[in-house]
Amino acid sequence: MPAYNAPLQDMRFLLNEVFDLKGMLSSLDGLKDHVDTDTADAILEEAAKISNSLLAPINRSGDEEGCLWNDGVVTTPSGFKEAYKTFIEGGWCGLGGNPEFGGMGMPKILGALVEEMIQSANISFGLYPMLTAGACLALDAHASEELKEKYLPNMYSGVWSGSMCLTEPHCGTDLGIIRTKAVPQADGSYTVSGTKIFITGGEHDLSDNIIHLVLAKLPDAPAGSRGISLFLVPKLLVDDKGVSGEKNNVSCGSIEHKMGIKASATCVMNFDGAKGWLVGDVNKGLAAMFTMMNYERLAVGVQGLAAAEQSYQNAVAYALDRTQGRSPQGAQNPDKAADPIFVHPDVRRMLMNMKAMNEGSRAFSVYSARFLDLSKYSQNESERQHAEAMVALLTPVCKAFLTDRGLESTVTGQQIFGGHGYVREWGQEQLVRDVRIAQIYEGTNGIQALDLMGRKIVSNDGRFFELFANEVADFVEGHRQDSSLQEFMEPLSAALSRLCDVTEHVIKSAKDDPSAVGAASVEYLDLFGYTAFAYVLARSAIAAQAHKGDDSNGFYDGKLKTVRYFYNRLLPRTLSLAEAVRSGSEDMMAITAEQL
Amino acid sequence: MPAYNAPLQDMRFLLNEVFDLKGMLSSLDGLKDHVDTDTADAILEEAAKISNSLLAPINRSGDEEGCLWNDGVVTTPSGFKEAYKTFIEGGWCGLGGNPEFGGMGMPKILGALVEEMIQSANISFGLYPMLTAGACLALDAHASEELKEKYLPNMYSGVWSGSMCLTEPHCGTDLGIIRTKAVPQADGSYTVSGTKIFITGGEHDLSDNIIHLVLAKLPDAPAGSRGISLFLVPKLLVDDKGVSGEKNNVSCGSIEHKMGIKASATCVMNFDGAKGWLVGDVNKGLAAMFTMMNYERLAVGVQGLAAAEQSYQNAVAYALDRTQGRSPQGAQNPDKAADPIFVHPDVRRMLMNMKAMNEGSRAFSVYSARFLDLSKYSQNESERQHAEAMVALLTPVCKAFLTDRGLESTVTGQQIFGGHGYVREWGQEQLVRDVRIAQIYEGTNGIQALDLMGRKIVSNDGRFFELFANEVADFVEGHRQDSSLQEFMEPLSAALSRLCDVTEHVIKSAKDDPSAVGAASVEYLDLFGYTAFAYVLARSAIAAQAHKGDDSNGFYDGKLKTVRYFYNRLLPRTLSLAEAVRSGSEDMMAITAEQL
Repeated sequence: MPAYNAPLQDMRFLLNEVFDLKGMLSSLDGLKDHVDTDTADAILEEAAKISNSLLAPINRSGDEEGCLWNDGVVTTPSGFKEAYKTFIEGGWCGLGGNPEFGGMGMPKILGALVEEMIQSANISFGLYPMLTAGACLALDAHASEELKEKYLPNMYSGVWSGSMCLTEPHCGTDLGIIRTKAVPQADGSYTVSGTKIFITGGEHDLSDNIIHLVLAKLPDAPAGSRGISLFLVPKLLVDDKGVSGEKNNVSCGSIEHKMGIKASATCVMNFDGAKGWLVGDVNKGLAAMFTMMNYERLAVGVQGLAAAEQSYQNAVAYALDRTQGRSPQGAQNPDKAADPIFVHPDVRRMLMNMKAMNEGSRAFSVYSARFLDLSKYSQNESERQHAEAMVALLTPVCKAFLTDRGLESTVTGQQIFGGHGYVREWGQEQLVRDVRIAQIYEGTNGIQALDLMGRKIVSNDGRFFELFANEVADFVEGHRQDSSLQEFMEPLSAALSRLCDVTEHVIKSAKDDPSAVGAASVEYLDLFGYTAFAYVLARSAIAAQAHKGDDSNGFYDGKLKTVRYFYNRLLPRTLSLAEAVRSGSEDMMAITAEQL
Repeated sequence: MPAYNAPLQDMRFLLNEVFDLKGMLSSLDGLKDHVDTDTADAILEEAAKISNSLLAPINRSGDEEGCLWNDGVVTTPSGFKEAYKTFIEGGWCGLGGNPEFGGMGMPKILGALVEEMIQSANISFGLYPMLTAGACLALDAHASEELKEKYLPNMYSGVWSGSMCLTEPHCGTDLGIIRTKAVPQADGSYTVSGTKIFITGGEHDLSDNIIHLVLAKLPDAPAGSRGISLFLVPKLLVDDKGVSGEKNNVSCGSIEHKMGIKASATCVMNFDGAKGWLVGDVNKGLAAMFTMMNYERLAVGVQGLAAAEQSYQNAVAYALDRTQGRSPQGAQNPDKAADPIFVHPDVRRMLMNMKAMNEGSRAFSVYSARFLDLSKYSQNESERQHAEAMVALLTPVCKAFLTDRGLESTVTGQQIFGGHGYVREWGQEQLVRDVRIAQIYEGTNGIQALDLMGRKIVSNDGRFFELFANEVADFVEGHRQDSSLQEFMEPLSAALSRLCDVTEHVIKSAKDDPSAVGAASVEYLDLFGYTAFAYVLARSAIAAQAHKGDDSNGFYDGKLKTVRYFYNRLLPRTLSLAEAVRSGSEDMMAITAEQL
């Protein structure tokens, strides 16, 4: 059975030594009164504990048992209900929530690390509170005071949970063509009718009520995405005293049989004239969803890292234990029949690939979460605007790059086990199946890449991109004199130039070629991702170097070795990615339907 | 439900227009009397039919039902027994078998294409006859006449099946440390005792008897891989009249619960003093296994292509049918709410990635199979030796590169379906799960890469490699004057130089650094693979160009577009791979166990 050990040392290193949590907290009015680095540390410790002891133990059984649907009732696997009760008693559902309505008001820079731990231990379980948190974000930002008072406290406490009802059988990516209807009623409420699919946590037995956020169209709504409104539709209607009782006209038609996350209920939800309330303005539903999207997309990106971290931990344990063959340097274990497979260069290559990408992913998620906090809490208008632009730019990279690397790493972690990785026993194959969904939901990774290349870069002529490029260029410039850093600064500078050239090239191509953005987008996002990882890892290397004489368990030395490995072995991937982007759209647009 | 349509036009194109089947057949004494291009074509047609109509329909139900173990008895999923009966009546088990003992004596160049079709339709099913064919190859090459006469006819007919018993709980890659024992008996037989795991088709209900080929050690055998012998151990003992009856001391202890290929029984096999017969010489068991390895490894490589082809076909159908969003060139379907997703450049990119890699894989597998045939049938000693060297060089590339691309492509094919790819219904997620094993079994892909880089290249100072490099260089030289081919010849020439430089670099590094081979191997194999695909695809492009005025369904034009896409979009991956190899072993060897 795999064990999970939260990588607390790396997390603390990032918060305290690389990204200056203390400085950030003290500068933000909305945080400094109730969070300090001690609180943050205690929360990390506690999250590690529940992940290790509460959530990891029901991960494999949850996968094997799965959720059950029976006549509209969904039952989660054994142990989930009890674990959820303990989980919500710890207040975890409201970690990032608005304190005015019972949330804990913790910054995302901490929340992202907590999410990583929960999801390393149990992605299926983690999805239930994640959806609730997302729904709360949208309600907190857009719902009326009345709705907030009525729903948020019970959602932050986890007594009620949330769901996001967007996708319909005929549309997922293209929400402009949804068919769910909302008809206004005399009492100010709406009657919502339609079918939603792929609804995570749409029905289950963990919470007393489920608050659905539903995208629907008013009868007279304009066509396309400008005619979408957002509605709150509870499973059980809530009376004036805040007590839920009477059943609303919402039902779960079935649950999906999926490749993975089998303990997470993925539901077909039928709204048959269900009572709902408008959240935000009429026809501004998509905009209201976008408020929470950046938070959710970071959380989904973190799922990629989370699965990869668990797979890595399992692979390390196996590589040190399993003996097979001899080291090319000569037997290391001459008294035994074989050496541990850790001696083989190719096994080390696989482990180092995972380690470098995981540490890059963690650093990048903290870096991005910091901008989310600044964009939410900063009172300095230019700092806030800058942070908002950075969030817009970085979010699609977080979501897609971390989950693509997550699949890559879990496949690698499975490979290290040989045939034992393909059978259930060791948990490695479940991680591959579970993480695969993160590349698909919350906007497929192809959509993330289009968002980055199109909306975030080409459509503003690279204005957001320049903020990032300038930050990296300033960083390189600031360390140009330090000869001990040249092994990182020179390739970082080269990678940045390459990224800038390619960015300019695509912005230019897009002026004449409407297919240029779509043709470039996925490889461009990867190119951006590797370059951004090089940047945050170089920042980690500098912080690690400061500890040369003070490194009791070799952590800082290991960090430097890992960053070096990334630079020499993985960063060169940008060469090919740049070439692929430059090859343009012509070759892929030339083929006809008949020639496929 | 996905449908399978065998890509017969591409197969015929490769056999007849690129790799000159007719010329090859007429030059080989062992083939020319009973195979001609008409026979070959009829066999392809028939294989397409059974794949489409017999095997594809039980693929998904087989996955859902899986194999059942009950007190040593293994039951295959519904329909498998009936399908197997029809399959063996068609003579498919003996397709490549020795005609002297009832085989059909067909060349591998044809067999590889038949295997592709069978496995596109149903990998789990395909494994049963594949293991039988492998066992027959080893028996035909190494067993005594008596054993061959007694066992081969019933195995070629499929009435009996075969298994390969190599792996043990403590060893898979490192077979030198197996513990299974074989004790010689007075009657010339042996008593075999030990436990074997991961035995594909070790027990099932399809055939009347199962003939296990078992690696074991004699009591006085030398340590390591030089002390391994091969034994034939039937499930039921066979009397002098060739009738099987009495149970041998072989039993199936359990079957594995796996990520995929759930309709293929993966067994723990217990040999408790089972009666067996030596195959080949004492202590030469591994060498005997290697005879069939090259055939089996090509077949496993083809599994990667097979799954990718099925995933591609499903993705094409979905991309032309599913409507979502609008073309960046403007609405293509203005009377409907959205355009088919085929209009989007990124969807086309995904489809073209799959198409190009599949066509490259198919061309490369035919190219490699041709050398297998020449190495087996050629009477010309130097041709035969050349072919043997090429087989040795190309086989690990076939196995690893095609299966790695197989996972990549099935993941891409799943991605095109968005959320619908993650649920069972469309079959895309099963293909990902099924193909994953092909990267692991029959020697993990890491082991293939070590075999290529170490045994096939460094240990003979690049002698085999030069044969390949010279062939490609001659090809480029031969077409240097044709201006219409320069779009391929120039990048092919550059890719070949890059591969040659890197090869030389690693051979040199390996002289001083025992870790150099292992550090380089996986990326080197990929570098080799992309370069080799560029070569076989350029040969395809030349054959396609010859049809400019004669291209009724656009196949040849589509082929040229696909090759062009490969060259511009995918071949640049060699840039990064070369850099990664050049980064050497230092960075991965630096980390300590404590720092992981």
